[in-house]
Amino acid sequence: MQKVDFIIRADYLLTMDGGLDVIRDGAVAVTGKNITDAGTFADIAKKYSAEKILGGTNKVVFPGLINTHTHAAMVYLRGLADDLPLQEWLEKHIWPVEGKWLTSEFVDDAVGLACLEMLKAGVTTYADMYFYEDTAGKKLEKIGMRAVLGAGIIDFPSKYAQSADDYFKNAENLITNWKGSELVTPCVAPHATYTCGPDNYKRASALAEKHGVLLHTHLAETRFETGLCQQRFGKTPVEYLDGIGVLSERMFAAHCVWLTDRDIEILAKRNVGVCHCIESNLKLASGFSPVPKLLKAGVKVALGTDGAASNNDLSILGEMSTAAKVHKAVTEDPTVVDSKTALLMATRNGAEILSLGDKIGSLRPGKRADIVIADLAQPHLTPIYDVYSHITYCMRPSDIETVMVNGKIVVEGGKLTTMDEAEIMAKAKVWQGKIKG
Amino acid sequence: MQKVDFIIRADYLLTMDGGLDVIRDGAVAVTGKNITDAGTFADIAKKYSAEKILGGTNKVVFPGLINTHTHAAMVYLRGLADDLPLQEWLEKHIWPVEGKWLTSEFVDDAVGLACLEMLKAGVTTYADMYFYEDTAGKKLEKIGMRAVLGAGIIDFPSKYAQSADDYFKNAENLITNWKGSELVTPCVAPHATYTCGPDNYKRASALAEKHGVLLHTHLAETRFETGLCQQRFGKTPVEYLDGIGVLSERMFAAHCVWLTDRDIEILAKRNVGVCHCIESNLKLASGFSPVPKLLKAGVKVALGTDGAASNNDLSILGEMSTAAKVHKAVTEDPTVVDSKTALLMATRNGAEILSLGDKIGSLRPGKRADIVIADLAQPHLTPIYDVYSHITYCMRPSDIETVMVNGKIVVEGGKLTTMDEAEIMAKAKVWQGKIKG
Repeated sequence: MQKVDFIIRADYLLTMDGGLDVIRDGAVAVTGKNITDAGTFADIAKKYSAEKILGGTNKVVFPGLINTHTHAAMVYLRGLADDLPLQEWLEKHIWPVEGKWLTSEFVDDAVGLACLEMLKAGVTTYADMYFYEDTAGKKLEKIGMRAVLGAGIIDFPSKYAQSADDYFKNAENLITNWKGSELVTPCVAPHATYTCGPDNYKRASALAEKHGVLLHTHLAETRFETGLCQQRFGKTPVEYLDGIGVLSERMFAAHCVWLTDRDIEILAKRNVGVCHCIESNLKLASGFSPVPKLLKAGVKVALGTDGAASNNDLSILGEMSTAAKVHKAVTEDPTVVDSKTALLMATRNGAEILSLGDKIGSLRPGKRADIVIADLAQPHLTPIYDVYSHITYCMRPSDIETVMVNGKIVVEGGKLTTMDEAEIMAKAKVWQGKIKG
Repeated sequence: MQKVDFIIRADYLLTMDGGLDVIRDGAVAVTGKNITDAGTFADIAKKYSAEKILGGTNKVVFPGLINTHTHAAMVYLRGLADDLPLQEWLEKHIWPVEGKWLTSEFVDDAVGLACLEMLKAGVTTYADMYFYEDTAGKKLEKIGMRAVLGAGIIDFPSKYAQSADDYFKNAENLITNWKGSELVTPCVAPHATYTCGPDNYKRASALAEKHGVLLHTHLAETRFETGLCQQRFGKTPVEYLDGIGVLSERMFAAHCVWLTDRDIEILAKRNVGVCHCIESNLKLASGFSPVPKLLKAGVKVALGTDGAASNNDLSILGEMSTAAKVHKAVTEDPTVVDSKTALLMATRNGAEILSLGDKIGSLRPGKRADIVIADLAQPHLTPIYDVYSHITYCMRPSDIETVMVNGKIVVEGGKLTTMDEAEIMAKAKVWQGKIKG
């Protein structure tokens, strides 16, 4: 009998590996930060003895959910302005408030709230694009959450950086500070074609190349952006970025709403990962990303919440449900984005577009133990005929009981174990008062 | 000081009356089954003393949510078959299972689970279309929930009724059994244009007229239905039903997806209520109902979950969020279906299309006390700048703490007070076993 730290048992185990089979009465063995084994409980119980048994009857276990596009600290601007066009929302509401309040201290406190919300909802990894990401990294280590942090690059000065040189110095510092970290993966994040000129995109790409890190950007989000790109360069945003040589498997791009068939071919050929942010795209009236076409073309599509200021929450379960439903109506085909595909996008695809496929995204021996235990003994999850269907169409963040990141329990009984929830909430209230003015 | 049974206090009180103002530190006084008064806590506390004070800091109070279209007992078929076209889903999966298992006992047990799920999610009234509604009525009285129960009428025989005469005898019995009931309002429910011929529609309308009750139907749900109607009658479903004289303010119609501008004019002119079931329409790939156009034309639009077999849950909060987001993308206008409109559809509009506007839908003195208390001290509801935005875009059923129907507390601390939750869940598991076979 091999000793392990945890055996996690469940009525339904979804490893999200291989053929996506459901293992009934399954179990996962965890040692240190890694998954040691996964299979039926009968097999696992024969091979291992554990310090602690988690899960049990009426539970389902699946890999930690992955939020591939957000601006975590913007959680402090949740619901500040709604039901407005993207440009007006950004220029008249979000940017002025950020201009006034955004500091390293703001990011420190706000990221705490974002992590609290995400972890309790089963999200174990997020990919960010913002400023003061060094501060976010330190908070992540404290709270015990995994992230790919992108140092934002824009063409205009801010409190965070006065010049292009400043932005790139901050980005390179982020990379050197966090390269090799277990939980935090640094990357470079040129904002979008309408806020970053070709020089900054090329410079970002060169920096990413130099350090072997990823590029995170917004791409083809709105009709406005596409029109502007056509006007300036006579190309779609995808054609334009391809033309300046910055599209590759190193890039993961949020939104990808306004795509031509040629754009889809380019994204597939360049192996660019797509972060589908459906709830943000709906709420800001950006449009419908052609996800079924992207998937058919072999493009890796994962899910993202976008910032809570636009969405207005950070729940990947919500994005799964919305994506699985909306694309059926758009294509008039109820078979597209089925419930397995939705969970695949939220787990394995997410890991792959973040180049973390060797570490997370499925419960395979040797990978990190980023694991969710959810409770199925809920009225809205009863009766049960298909567990994938329930996770995609019915499960709510409140059903998440236990969350493990890197082999460490960070949520137990629905409560954060690593930091004081009340303190995080109290800090948010103080900032709310300041921002309201 | 007038004595009342309850004073319900909250940081934010949304009466959904008049101009939809938010009352900060508000309170509602309840006596017996009725609302006695609503206003600021300071005013209410001066005028009334109560047996029991509910609510308090970090709470928001609003009227019970209204689900204007469901098939409650179908909750037992939740997730039985997904990601399929409507006709295949109905004909190959749902109808065969119903044919085998649907009995009065099935309805009795299944309605218990549906009510449990809805009440815990803040839904205090639902409008149903199904069979064995007498059984449902008895369960509703036991559990303490309000409903408009529609006796289903279809052209073909079933275990429930062998002939048209049988269906109408059952419908008339339902009406006479429940007319004047405090919680249960009976009505007649001809299923749809593709399952009910003109004779049954006219007979249903005459029966409704005779007893002064409502008509509940499915209308213009799918491209299939619209095509069939054009083929048979050379008319859209709305034109056809109008042509046979059955459209009036007595009718509330679910779906209304495939509408011409002329159809919208007819619905407005005839004062037909529309139950918008967006999540069902998305998931079954039925399409997008032109809700912003309907609202602009003055049609009363409320929200419905449809049955849990198609949706797959019974949460009106979910429908609000989805409706508020999706119509923005469809119309490329982020200002449509704003957060106030979403809550209005879920409360006052719902009451009005069910002809219960004098009893429920807003917290006005003299109306019944159907009231929800929700907790705002949650990470996903923090910070808070606009309470309407939070209810529509971020609130989850798990935030609902206390629910009152007809002046009686039915949910307290998130738990059902009127029946044993474990027993309801255990019964569902037994039926799950039978249905799985």
